[in-house]
Amino acid sequence: MTLHPYAESVLDDFTALSAIGATPAGGVDRQAGTAEDGAAREWLRRWLSERGFTVAVDRIGNLFGLYELVPGAPYVLAGSHLDSQPRGGRFDGAYGVLAAAHAAARLRDLDGARYNLAVVDWFNEEGSRFTPSMMGSGVFTGKLPLDTALATTDPSGVAVAEALDSLGERGTGDVFGEGTGRTAAGYAEIHIEQGRELDKTGTTLGLVDSTWAASKYELVVHGAQAHTGATAIADRNDALYGAALAVVFARELADRHGEDLHTSCGRLTVVPNSPVVVPREVHLHLDLRSPSDDLLAEADAALRSRLAEIEIEADVTVERRVAHGWKGHVYHPEGVELARSVTEDLGVSSMTVRTRAGHDSTNMKDVVPTVMLFVPSVEGISHAEGEFTRDEDLVVGVDVLTETLSRMARGHLDGG
Amino acid sequence: MTLHPYAESVLDDFTALSAIGATPAGGVDRQAGTAEDGAAREWLRRWLSERGFTVAVDRIGNLFGLYELVPGAPYVLAGSHLDSQPRGGRFDGAYGVLAAAHAAARLRDLDGARYNLAVVDWFNEEGSRFTPSMMGSGVFTGKLPLDTALATTDPSGVAVAEALDSLGERGTGDVFGEGTGRTAAGYAEIHIEQGRELDKTGTTLGLVDSTWAASKYELVVHGAQAHTGATAIADRNDALYGAALAVVFARELADRHGEDLHTSCGRLTVVPNSPVVVPREVHLHLDLRSPSDDLLAEADAALRSRLAEIEIEADVTVERRVAHGWKGHVYHPEGVELARSVTEDLGVSSMTVRTRAGHDSTNMKDVVPTVMLFVPSVEGISHAEGEFTRDEDLVVGVDVLTETLSRMARGHLDGG
Repeated sequence: MTLHPYAESVLDDFTALSAIGATPAGGVDRQAGTAEDGAAREWLRRWLSERGFTVAVDRIGNLFGLYELVPGAPYVLAGSHLDSQPRGGRFDGAYGVLAAAHAAARLRDLDGARYNLAVVDWFNEEGSRFTPSMMGSGVFTGKLPLDTALATTDPSGVAVAEALDSLGERGTGDVFGEGTGRTAAGYAEIHIEQGRELDKTGTTLGLVDSTWAASKYELVVHGAQAHTGATAIADRNDALYGAALAVVFARELADRHGEDLHTSCGRLTVVPNSPVVVPREVHLHLDLRSPSDDLLAEADAALRSRLAEIEIEADVTVERRVAHGWKGHVYHPEGVELARSVTEDLGVSSMTVRTRAGHDSTNMKDVVPTVMLFVPSVEGISHAEGEFTRDEDLVVGVDVLTETLSRMARGHLDGG
Repeated sequence: MTLHPYAESVLDDFTALSAIGATPAGGVDRQAGTAEDGAAREWLRRWLSERGFTVAVDRIGNLFGLYELVPGAPYVLAGSHLDSQPRGGRFDGAYGVLAAAHAAARLRDLDGARYNLAVVDWFNEEGSRFTPSMMGSGVFTGKLPLDTALATTDPSGVAVAEALDSLGERGTGDVFGEGTGRTAAGYAEIHIEQGRELDKTGTTLGLVDSTWAASKYELVVHGAQAHTGATAIADRNDALYGAALAVVFARELADRHGEDLHTSCGRLTVVPNSPVVVPREVHLHLDLRSPSDDLLAEADAALRSRLAEIEIEADVTVERRVAHGWKGHVYHPEGVELARSVTEDLGVSSMTVRTRAGHDSTNMKDVVPTVMLFVPSVEGISHAEGEFTRDEDLVVGVDVLTETLSRMARGHLDGG
């Protein structure tokens, strides 16, 4: 197949964007609401403005580039997120925003449009600095109250509202929804796979047909501060021992269920964290994910009963709070079919895939017809600097997204 | 028995000292080199100066109050430390410094002195902010190089030298040793027990005859950063899973050996500590302590072999470094006997006890005749705000220390 004439500008722009918050090992560090995130947003704002988009930011910091093709009509949105994990990969999120921007820009003279186009950079998809993840799309879709999101603090106590204000990136009103005159009619997103299926099978495009369910817990293990040398073992209420038992159990649970259950603990904080003090408190964040809602419920029950045992074994108490979660859901079959016909028409190899990670599309698909596309990620490396997608795949991904968006804007998903 | 007439001033002074860095729950937070530590040192400096002591600070921030009774003679030192754990108890260390100051002040007109007297506040005994613990006495006794100690940084990157400078508490030269004209001839320290023996048996004074051995390790578990949702379990190199297995093993090791082995992990730090990132690195501090050097060597071997297994189980690598340690040692039997005769003469109940915690006397006993005394600690609570010793025990402790110091200054341990 022939590369689109815009291919070079996609790659040049991606190089420029990847330089913002770049890390020495080839990744980026652009956590939500940091100066690096602000610089990436500024870069995007300028890119959009130069191409005639109207740029607007809503109250949770989602940044939109609006193209009005049909005055007063609803919008088909396309986008992803510019924020990253600490020392994250440069493709995760940023590629999707850039691809959406290029796709929309190519469609500015679209014939037969029934909808308008909007590019979006969702605020804080990653959830590393401010938990939960998928925050901007969560507020946009009404799943997370705006006030809760704005009041969320990072580990040093800075609130989302404050972080956005310090960048001048907190909008004063909505961009979509009641009172704005704008509604969303559909959503498309392209992202790197964060898995090995496409890479392993040599397939260029993944058509996401379903998402894993996830349950995310905040656990607080309460013990009692004591002397690590002097205090008898029998007298200890060691919060870290209790937490370590929970971390080990989470892995055992995954091992029990093969590839049908993913469990992990990514954040664990010890109080007071002195070498010679038995910890009085440990905060940990624990995830369970599965393609099956039933298996997830079973894992939840197993976790609950193991935590009760741990309370006895370690002589501690464990507070357990469900912090965030979503059920396993299918993406709109009509959307999958539309994307499949696009890949066929463009001669691009494709297959249906499932996403284990959450995406902003996980939120959007519950409110509007949504198409989610993946490009291959070499060896499935994700949330790490070694994340890599080949240039040719990046370019083809933009082509597929452009044609998908074009058909959505022309109403191909209407009444489907 | 009759309380010493100075009893009230001991208790008043202890109340005043405990107000510095006081926490709402009755403890203190005076980590080494913080403003609170500085304020406590300032309080002590004034107390000593007002009573005619010459105050001097050495290059690692040990603060001395010198009383010259016999011009040119060696010094018998008495003291402990004013620094505390984060949210630590108000007795640990501070009581020993205050008791030493009162004891020395009472002996200013001592008849028949053969030695001079010095009160000492050893810098950074706790090792919570700057690791290792017992830093000031470690440098004083030549066990820790001065430059290494001064270059040690806290978790935010501040070096010991910097912290001391910011308080104006870094001396420009030695106070004891070659070139100063001063040598140490003995050391006495009184401390709360940090165990239950005295409290359980209703004994007022503990005569410390031996110390547990300790081996302290810094472990770094190296994994690989990945996505907590997307990355297959089999593809993970989860540094926190490896670390949790080590924490659990440490407890199992202690459980295997009853009360003859204490193990703990007080500090554990996760990198990058994002809820949705499989940790790439975990730093942990692990202690093994035992009354038996042999058992400690056995535990060390068991730990080493378990860490090798963990490397395979969690698909990580583990770096293991011995950070600090000491062999189990007896205190000078002559010192124990001297203290025993003091308690008998004063009509105070006493028993020999072993210390599981390290103290500055653990270092000092290796270079000069050393007497270590304990007062009871209710329920053995330690390194916690709930630490408590009764007023009458505090007062009697000062009496016993005074008489012990008096006999040491008159040469009762000479040629023993």
